[in-house]
Amino acid sequence: MKEGWLLSELADAVGGRVDGDAGRRVFGVATLEDATPDDLSLLTNSRYRPFLDASRAGAILVGPDSGIEGRDLLVAPDPYLALAVILDRMHPGLRPVPGVSVDARVSPSAAVGADVTVGPFAVVGAEVRLLDRVVVGAGVVIGDGSTIGEDTVLMPRVVLYPGTRVGARCLIHAGVVLGGDGFGFATTAGAHRKVPQLGRVVVEDDVEIGANTTVDRGTLGETRIGRGTKIDNLVMVAHGVVVGPHSLLAGQAGIAGSTRLGSHVTMAGQSGAAGHLRLGDRVVVAAKSAVFADVPDRAFVAGTPAVDHRSWKRSLALVKMLPELRSRIRELTARLAALEAKGKGNA
Amino acid sequence: MKEGWLLSELADAVGGRVDGDAGRRVFGVATLEDATPDDLSLLTNSRYRPFLDASRAGAILVGPDSGIEGRDLLVAPDPYLALAVILDRMHPGLRPVPGVSVDARVSPSAAVGADVTVGPFAVVGAEVRLLDRVVVGAGVVIGDGSTIGEDTVLMPRVVLYPGTRVGARCLIHAGVVLGGDGFGFATTAGAHRKVPQLGRVVVEDDVEIGANTTVDRGTLGETRIGRGTKIDNLVMVAHGVVVGPHSLLAGQAGIAGSTRLGSHVTMAGQSGAAGHLRLGDRVVVAAKSAVFADVPDRAFVAGTPAVDHRSWKRSLALVKMLPELRSRIRELTARLAALEAKGKGNA
Amino acid sequence: MKEGWLLSELADAVGGRVDGDAGRRVFGVATLEDATPDDLSLLTNSRYRPFLDASRAGAILVGPDSGIEGRDLLVAPDPYLALAVILDRMHPGLRPVPGVSVDARVSPSAAVGADVTVGPFAVVGAEVRLLDRVVVGAGVVIGDGSTIGEDTVLMPRVVLYPGTRVGARCLIHAGVVLGGDGFGFATTAGAHRKVPQLGRVVVEDDVEIGANTTVDRGTLGETRIGRGTKIDNLVMVAHGVVVGPHSLLAGQAGIAGSTRLGSHVTMAGQSGAAGHLRLGDRVVVAAKSAVFADVPDRAFVAGTPAVDHRSWKRSLALVKMLPELRSRIRELTARLAALEAKGKGNA
Repeated sequence: MKEGWLLSELADAVGGRVDGDAGRRVFGVATLEDATPDDLSLLTNSRYRPFLDASRAGAILVGPDSGIEGRDLLVAPDPYLALAVILDRMHPGLRPVPGVSVDARVSPSAAVGADVTVGPFAVVGAEVRLLDRVVVGAGVVIGDGSTIGEDTVLMPRVVLYPGTRVGARCLIHAGVVLGGDGFGFATTAGAHRKVPQLGRVVVEDDVEIGANTTVDRGTLGETRIGRGTKIDNLVMVAHGVVVGPHSLLAGQAGIAGSTRLGSHVTMAGQSGAAGHLRLGDRVVVAAKSAVFADVPDRAFVAGTPAVDHRSWKRSLALVKMLPELRSRIRELTARLAALEAKGKGNA
Repeated sequence: MKEGWLLSELADAVGGRVDGDAGRRVFGVATLEDATPDDLSLLTNSRYRPFLDASRAGAILVGPDSGIEGRDLLVAPDPYLALAVILDRMHPGLRPVPGVSVDARVSPSAAVGADVTVGPFAVVGAEVRLLDRVVVGAGVVIGDGSTIGEDTVLMPRVVLYPGTRVGARCLIHAGVVLGGDGFGFATTAGAHRKVPQLGRVVVEDDVEIGANTTVDRGTLGETRIGRGTKIDNLVMVAHGVVVGPHSLLAGQAGIAGSTRLGSHVTMAGQSGAAGHLRLGDRVVVAAKSAVFADVPDRAFVAGTPAVDHRSWKRSLALVKMLPELRSRIRELTARLAALEAKGKGNA
Repeated sequence: MKEGWLLSELADAVGGRVDGDAGRRVFGVATLEDATPDDLSLLTNSRYRPFLDASRAGAILVGPDSGIEGRDLLVAPDPYLALAVILDRMHPGLRPVPGVSVDARVSPSAAVGADVTVGPFAVVGAEVRLLDRVVVGAGVVIGDGSTIGEDTVLMPRVVLYPGTRVGARCLIHAGVVLGGDGFGFATTAGAHRKVPQLGRVVVEDDVEIGANTTVDRGTLGETRIGRGTKIDNLVMVAHGVVVGPHSLLAGQAGIAGSTRLGSHVTMAGQSGAAGHLRLGDRVVVAAKSAVFADVPDRAFVAGTPAVDHRSWKRSLALVKMLPELRSRIRELTARLAALEAKGKGNA
């Protein structure tokens, strides 16, 4: 890393170009505020334009038509994607040294693949299958009969209930609980009898799940997180839910039992969906909104209950107009009374 | 299990009857989509009626008057309750082998009852009492002076702060934290001084608490979860709260400090209650709603701030009517102006 | 403790006075309901006034002008602050015995200060610095290169990702995760590519963080929790967020990526703020509200989207008036029609 990276070389890597000194070398990436002349920085959000002039950054990663002058610019068609490519190149992921800690407890009936890492105080149950290059963090608990796919990383203190299946290349963050019992009770005479939760959680390939998020199993069948879906922290995915592939569930979102999401669905922060619903492909649910009915493909909904986001905005605007409507009604009432009086006068 | 169960036998167990071949045998229970001819399936929610015709299930568990024909039906007065009964019969809970793991650390002053199970890397503090048949999962931490009642199960990685009391037959899921400090600070000159939290959390008998939920202790006195109450995942129960018996708190619900819930209260998903309130018996708080005032017995409230759910629905409907009201005001204004002009003409 | 505390002595400690028997001794503090004649109790919230008459408490801690008679009163200018002072005096914090558990795994390259406590099954990574009197609870995992300041306590099962910095005198509760990856993905052709999260979390001095709360690190730069800030349970602080000093984040609040809070900000329970915003000093966000735009200093906002709380209350009131407005429009329409008919008659 000593000699850093040429802007020209990074431009090639991201399918972009250099405006300025293509021979300039950068040794790292930093924010506009923190960057030194040795650093590449970036401007992907115009809100941060004011920080540009004061920045000591040696070069700036920008999108097309940034309008920035007097700087060495690395111009990329998609600067945020370019940032990912550049950071991956500068910081190749460091894999932990393979091996099972002497302080871990791995069932003799577990199948451990090649180059697997198991950290201290981890517990791996009976008949568990850890495929090649799986990383099991410190204090992780994997229930009997679970399977973890190639190259998947379980960060410290993840808990998998028995029979959970996690695909390949997943990243499960600290404190996540997969396969806890769904919230299913049969109420008779005011008492709640537990309905056994015998289903399982299936997480497909290339999924990321954020810290302290929970995904429950149901009474029967599966709770499924689709391929390529990314889930943020403190999200609740209830029993029997199916989240389609390539979806995004932001922080503190919640999905109630048996609801099915299509592909490429986005649920923004603190949004929710009631149970037994169907959200179509490419649906977007605005932050803090709650969905209480099925949503068709490609709809963008907002509010509680969530409606098309344009209707939601219109309602907000009209509520703001209420004081004016009220005063106009008062005025009409007065003018009408005057006419009525005059009318009587004429009679 | 080899020879399965006769429908007649299951009908007796659930106080129901068979419509069709009472001598048919089933070997398991599965969803309509997954069921084979050897399986019993169920139709408890009409939304899933479309899946029925394609289902290969050998028999269907239904409620009275299902209107389904050409199938062997197990008709139960309460099919969801019947499902619980049947699954309990088919899958008798497998208790872990009793015994204290050599990898657990149990204080010499702890009292361990008969047939107790303590998993690896669990820590049991001084003067803790584990009554008969308690199961302490891997990595659980039980603070000094806590008591766990008969047959209660603490799943992996539960943390109990010192002095916590959990009753009998409770199920506490992975990642739950009981007895953390309440959010209590005395603010002077803009700085927040911690008020010591010396109270304790008491969980009565037959309570279930979902994954990563937290229940705080207060400065003094108790935070109490009533007998038979069921709490879902990621729920926040603050210091000094009292939740009455047989209540249901759904996922991501939150209750602020010192609020008291009566018996059989339901708080739906992502709902909340402010502090120092009283919610009466059998109150229902709709999903995503926030309660900012006391609620009388049996009220069903919705919205933010939560009001009677009928008023809430009426307000939503009226807001939808606002465009029409506005155009009617415009029309009245025009007609009135015409009359006024005519009036002047007459003068 | 045998001989308890004189009311006069406690009055001196809190800068207050005694109304009644200054020579009375109390041996503890309890709620009005639980207190015995040996206890001091308190009345800091008028809602609990009804419990006073029935209370057996020997003395009552109150504010000025309580209007209570016939009781021995400890009158303090700020009774809640006085409670903190009195409880600290009666219950001097018991520090665990210093020492590193033989069941902990501490990297040889970690620097361990004086009188540090490390509990069983804790894992302390390479190059970690634990300053004097740090307490690391059972099952805590501290990633490589992290630093923990003097007198800070990490309760059981806290996870710190590599490079996390925690200041002095902090209290981090069970299940907290600091430094998990921010939710940053570059989406191309519908697939989400992870943007490496290489930043770090910095927690300044005198911060408290509640159970199962998560604070993420960002791609670059820092996520920072300001000095003296207190965070409740199940709160989500996303990547790149800066929370100013002496702020309060109540239970289940959430702050999206790169948003900056000033000093002394209060976010009430279940409130949220969208990303890339600026909330000024001393801003208050009401419970369950969601901030979608910048907020100036000292503003008190409520609703979704959050607006000045007075406007929010006005809108609520006007929505309640809608039925009346509608009937008045109906009435005007009828009277106008009558006049029009009469007008035709005149013609």
